[in-house]
Amino acid sequence: MKRRDIIAAAGVGLAATALVGCKEKDQSVAGGPAAEQQKFNWKMVTSWPKNFPGVGVGAENFARLVTEMSGGRLTVKVYAAGELVPALEVFDAVSRGTAELGHGAPYYWKGKVPAAQFFCALPFGPNAAEMNAWLHHGGGIQLWEEAYKPFGILPLACGNTGVQTAGWFNKEIKSVNDFRGLKMRTPGLGGEVLTKMGGTVVNMPAGEIFTALQTGAIDATEWIGPYNDLALGLHKAAKYYYTPGWQEPSVQFELDINLKAWETLPADLQAIVRAAARAVNGDMLDDYNARNMEAMEQLKSEGVDVRRLPDDVLARLKEVAGEVVESSANADPVAKKVWEQQKAYLKRLYDYAESNEKDIYTIRG
Amino acid sequence: MKRRDIIAAAGVGLAATALVGCKEKDQSVAGGPAAEQQKFNWKMVTSWPKNFPGVGVGAENFARLVTEMSGGRLTVKVYAAGELVPALEVFDAVSRGTAELGHGAPYYWKGKVPAAQFFCALPFGPNAAEMNAWLHHGGGIQLWEEAYKPFGILPLACGNTGVQTAGWFNKEIKSVNDFRGLKMRTPGLGGEVLTKMGGTVVNMPAGEIFTALQTGAIDATEWIGPYNDLALGLHKAAKYYYTPGWQEPSVQFELDINLKAWETLPADLQAIVRAAARAVNGDMLDDYNARNMEAMEQLKSEGVDVRRLPDDVLARLKEVAGEVVESSANADPVAKKVWEQQKAYLKRLYDYAESNEKDIYTIRG
Repeated sequence: MKRRDIIAAAGVGLAATALVGCKEKDQSVAGGPAAEQQKFNWKMVTSWPKNFPGVGVGAENFARLVTEMSGGRLTVKVYAAGELVPALEVFDAVSRGTAELGHGAPYYWKGKVPAAQFFCALPFGPNAAEMNAWLHHGGGIQLWEEAYKPFGILPLACGNTGVQTAGWFNKEIKSVNDFRGLKMRTPGLGGEVLTKMGGTVVNMPAGEIFTALQTGAIDATEWIGPYNDLALGLHKAAKYYYTPGWQEPSVQFELDINLKAWETLPADLQAIVRAAARAVNGDMLDDYNARNMEAMEQLKSEGVDVRRLPDDVLARLKEVAGEVVESSANADPVAKKVWEQQKAYLKRLYDYAESNEKDIYTIRG
Repeated sequence: MKRRDIIAAAGVGLAATALVGCKEKDQSVAGGPAAEQQKFNWKMVTSWPKNFPGVGVGAENFARLVTEMSGGRLTVKVYAAGELVPALEVFDAVSRGTAELGHGAPYYWKGKVPAAQFFCALPFGPNAAEMNAWLHHGGGIQLWEEAYKPFGILPLACGNTGVQTAGWFNKEIKSVNDFRGLKMRTPGLGGEVLTKMGGTVVNMPAGEIFTALQTGAIDATEWIGPYNDLALGLHKAAKYYYTPGWQEPSVQFELDINLKAWETLPADLQAIVRAAARAVNGDMLDDYNARNMEAMEQLKSEGVDVRRLPDDVLARLKEVAGEVVESSANADPVAKKVWEQQKAYLKRLYDYAESNEKDIYTIRG
């Protein structure tokens, strides 16, 4: 890559709109008294309960930031899951224009857009920094836009959980055989791995997990990480808390924008929406990194039995995860195109990390 | 922490300004025709040469974003190092109001504000994610604001290099003795460690490093990482490229805002400045994580001899670094206050990382 290209590429996703277009818009917008300024009152549907720690609060921060930065010219009203549409129908609602904006996890709509999960989480895959390097400076966001365009949606990265945990278990995991017959709540590609290991995936909304675990309707559940898991009280319904979160080394959340609505925004408001999403993208990760640590301390102080999955179990999970990711990508041409580019790019990031990011942890001792 | 507090705290640094204040401002600002709107034309001095990859481009992105989001109501003109003030006088220039904004590395002004380096980089210290978790959700930013307030400056996090490298050497490092008499360009706490190891620190501006290394005026230099090092051509003047960057597992950059100028901004423009800084904070790290990997590949393809510092050398460097950080903190009451809070917090993050962030690298294999 030539230096000229590097400099040009650095602005992608942050300042893609030419400043001259922005000035023209400004003159038309600011040219009359307040009453004549065009105001936009947008709705944002989300996959999260009201005031949900971490990701839900992040979505609300996004809305507040946009309203604040635009001086009220673009207001965003947030709807919790179920208020306007159910949690898993956010993508559809934005696609058909029921709401201009949506916030959720890409893999929630993998039934409709199989490629979506590659922008979200991969077992034994990228951490938050790697996912974001790929998205914003490794070609990822362009593939994401391409995958969502047929649905009339512009996606922006908007928050990440960081490293998750392997979940809560009422059965000890001593060998790969212990997954046989295990009933576990775990979505996405991790769920497919569990199925291949002989387990049974049982999916359900957040509100039902605790009871299902407590009554034995399920033997195990993966949720998010210590911060959200503590809030759900899962430690009161399970014996063991396993690490590390092999199934989700990070989960990337998205802002869905209805493309027709997007095109009605002047350039300054488009820039505000982009920057707000990016600001929340960082802040949510910082929030999770701080609060997960604090919540794990609290869980341990309450006597939770935190364990690491055995090496041979992790090795087998990795093998199966590799097969699941490949077959998932091969089942859909768009997913296949995304995964081929992503796989090659991530391999290069992983190789680099060995002597750098990873080694920093090692030498710190 | 109670749930109420957690939710309230989640907005800190992102949406601290009440929306009601914002609406009032909006009415006054938007109440007249364009010519009557208050416009702000601000200057931003930086420590970077024009079009400098990574950090310099990030500073320019910040300026562009603010101008774009505000529809030209707040324009930011960027000055490269030396155009208005020298690279290392950015902090002073913003403090006295020569420029409303500045962009640089906190440890550049450690002579004036010894606490600054704790917001920047610590040998064997936090990576970018940990530094940012501490800053934004672990009490760091409040300490930072307190440390800069006497100088009339509001600091915001605005970019990070991620993991650096240990630098370019024309002498092989086989044991701790090889640091004796070594003349090396390396600033900050890393430089103090080198001095204690028997080396001689020689500091100089970026433009002089290549020649100094080539002529043997210095035996070694640390600069930033593969992306910037390649741009400077350091591989053409040194035999060995050592990893990992023990001295700077991450370097956090700052936006300096003149407090008096800040107070003249309406709430919507303040929100825009905050969000632009936060957006660039994430984007610059993504940029470095992508480009460092690519640049290292190129360096290797050009035959650069990339080596890891020996374990016993790293162990001794760590020991000395611990002493240097402590004595540096003890030499100044503000620095001491910052470090005591930071040290305790980082220890908790490091402990958590062992079974989570670090383990993710291990299981990926």
